[in-house]
Amino acid sequence: MDDAGVRTTAEIDALARAAREASRDVSTLSREDKDAVLLALAAAIGAHEREILEANAADLAAAEANGVTGAKLKRLRLDGPALAQMRDGLAQLASLDDPVGEVTRDDRVATGLRVRKVRTPLGVVCMIYEARPGVTIDAFALCFKAGNACVLKGGREANRSNALLARIARGVLRERGVPEGAITQLTTSDRDLIRHLLTLDGLIDLVIPRGGETLIRFVHEHSRMPTVQHFHGVCHVYVDASADLERALDIVATGKASAPATCNATECALVHEAVAPAFVPMLAQRCAADGIELRGCPRTGELAGAQPVVGARDDDFGTEFLDLILACRVVGSFDEAIAHIRAHGSDHTDAIVTGDESSGERFRREVQSSCVLVNASTRFNDGFQLGLGAEIGISTTRLHAYGPMGLRELTVERYVVDGEGQTR
Amino acid sequence: MDDAGVRTTAEIDALARAAREASRDVSTLSREDKDAVLLALAAAIGAHEREILEANAADLAAAEANGVTGAKLKRLRLDGPALAQMRDGLAQLASLDDPVGEVTRDDRVATGLRVRKVRTPLGVVCMIYEARPGVTIDAFALCFKAGNACVLKGGREANRSNALLARIARGVLRERGVPEGAITQLTTSDRDLIRHLLTLDGLIDLVIPRGGETLIRFVHEHSRMPTVQHFHGVCHVYVDASADLERALDIVATGKASAPATCNATECALVHEAVAPAFVPMLAQRCAADGIELRGCPRTGELAGAQPVVGARDDDFGTEFLDLILACRVVGSFDEAIAHIRAHGSDHTDAIVTGDESSGERFRREVQSSCVLVNASTRFNDGFQLGLGAEIGISTTRLHAYGPMGLRELTVERYVVDGEGQTR
Repeated sequence: MDDAGVRTTAEIDALARAAREASRDVSTLSREDKDAVLLALAAAIGAHEREILEANAADLAAAEANGVTGAKLKRLRLDGPALAQMRDGLAQLASLDDPVGEVTRDDRVATGLRVRKVRTPLGVVCMIYEARPGVTIDAFALCFKAGNACVLKGGREANRSNALLARIARGVLRERGVPEGAITQLTTSDRDLIRHLLTLDGLIDLVIPRGGETLIRFVHEHSRMPTVQHFHGVCHVYVDASADLERALDIVATGKASAPATCNATECALVHEAVAPAFVPMLAQRCAADGIELRGCPRTGELAGAQPVVGARDDDFGTEFLDLILACRVVGSFDEAIAHIRAHGSDHTDAIVTGDESSGERFRREVQSSCVLVNASTRFNDGFQLGLGAEIGISTTRLHAYGPMGLRELTVERYVVDGEGQTR
Repeated sequence: MDDAGVRTTAEIDALARAAREASRDVSTLSREDKDAVLLALAAAIGAHEREILEANAADLAAAEANGVTGAKLKRLRLDGPALAQMRDGLAQLASLDDPVGEVTRDDRVATGLRVRKVRTPLGVVCMIYEARPGVTIDAFALCFKAGNACVLKGGREANRSNALLARIARGVLRERGVPEGAITQLTTSDRDLIRHLLTLDGLIDLVIPRGGETLIRFVHEHSRMPTVQHFHGVCHVYVDASADLERALDIVATGKASAPATCNATECALVHEAVAPAFVPMLAQRCAADGIELRGCPRTGELAGAQPVVGARDDDFGTEFLDLILACRVVGSFDEAIAHIRAHGSDHTDAIVTGDESSGERFRREVQSSCVLVNASTRFNDGFQLGLGAEIGISTTRLHAYGPMGLRELTVERYVVDGEGQTR
């Protein structure tokens, strides 16, 4: 629904109620009807490209006038290729199987009842995110394909872009006879209204905060409904005594350099002391070549030879640098590596490089992060890379969805039971 | 851990930290080690029967002196058969498959990575429940078998019984080399301390409140970690135009009479007007015979003939009576029945009695309660009846676990990825 002029909690209530009502209709749409909406939306975005770019240009100009720069400004920008990617994303989503109605269990129990578990939409999903207009269409489309209505609140710098994108989506829904309450884009920045929204646990089923830690903590502290979030990704690579060192070097260095500010970037290498004399100099040299600042423990510094190593402070371990910085610690044993990950990890992603299957197996069992990798980069913890086809975020909450959230993670399983008159 | 003398938030923190530490060890125990603990606990309960019954007698005497009566006193009581049932429950749990390590997906993706999803324990589960000492051992045992540590807070009237049962469990853990932090039984009733416990989201992964609505709301409002709960069960049976009326009568009447105060009891019959003239008199007569008070809409009253019907007030629809009371409404259509369930239901359990498979299919699709039944009693929404082997409660939260929570619902799935040096 259009929130133009929302100023009171009663107006927020009305929007959330409309979303709840719409969710009932969306939950029973056929796959064909949902995919038709997604494809029509892709076409509508193409048809409105000029207006979208104009609205976005106005957002950018206002943001720049307010001193927004760097990565934040970049996230705010839409251009031709970004819109093409948005349309491709919609087409890709339309090609994925519908999770709703999927039967995950089908048994007959002793009483003769047939017991099935069937995937069903969550209902109304609220997403609160940074000023990143690409997320608006992505989030709506994923929620919708999984049979949910969504209430979206993007960062205010993107208000013009978001409002227009939501208006285009509502137009498509209207044309296809689907209630417009399937998408609500809030543009208010009134904290009291957002706080009120977060108390509507009778109308909203799940809140997903995405963005900086302050935003996530705000949502987590004020939300009365369940939240699924990841606070941050402090991802480790442990280079075991039996590791192939060239392989380890590639995994560690690309794990940072390929996308230093993502949540699945490698933040810390833990190196077994048996291979440290050989590996640390290789790593220090590679970091220097790749422009990565290496922050090492004293032993790392000793072993690095002529290569530059910044002495790590205690708080460099457990930090998500979001930059071309890598921490490194030499550990005396496998157990010490595990203890380090338990103490400093964030349950997001951790990897081991090893030539010893028994070490791999111990690591898989004892490190219980949302994604644990053996001989592969931490950067593979991503919905697309893991074959989910789409992703709305990566959860480090050990409930419901742990790791990348795709379409299935936007549903829940319920029981459907058939009998022939059984009673107790 | 023993909470004797917990009076400060720092002491609560220490207990929760010990639970977190213990959870790491419990999470990697083998099935054999876990089952050995459960069976040893069953034996220890047998060996300490006299002390347990004495502690419980002291709880009962104090509760009676404080004016506790009726169902509340009954729930507090342990006797020989109750302890035998507790021991049987432990043996039964030991016979169930270990959910931890279960592989729910195993694919190779385009990059050559092998991607598995593997069930893993939640970590630390906190359960807050009424004065019902049987739940103490049940809850610990379920959490433990699923690889979790638990922090339990039972109603204070059961403190002596609970403290002794937890002490016996800790003794068994100690003998078998498992950290005692695997079970913490809090006996404090200081609301400020419980509120503090509910803020420890870094140490506790899930809170399950069980009991009255006030308790559940208190937990829900103050908990910073996810909660899984059911507020109440307002379960409907819709008697369709094509229903076999004898079958419908049995399903409705036993749905209430067999256990009137349970959350899966039938609270309201919705009767299609086409069969109402035949069905309502049958229902009224059966209710009179079974001692059920029938609260009907005006049309129900007209059709009941000489049988007694109390005029239903608006708020009788949507009420969990917890007693031998049944609401009844005659509806004009299938759609009106669905609308009634949407307006007054609680997402717990709803059933249809029908001879028409297309009505059954519509009901299965459009009513999205945690359990939807066709031609069977609402009382089958129960972990044992649905084949889960055990149950810690029935969730109406549309996240993680929707419906009965068994062992699997006390775990989460994480990603385990194997490569041969893949990088991005």
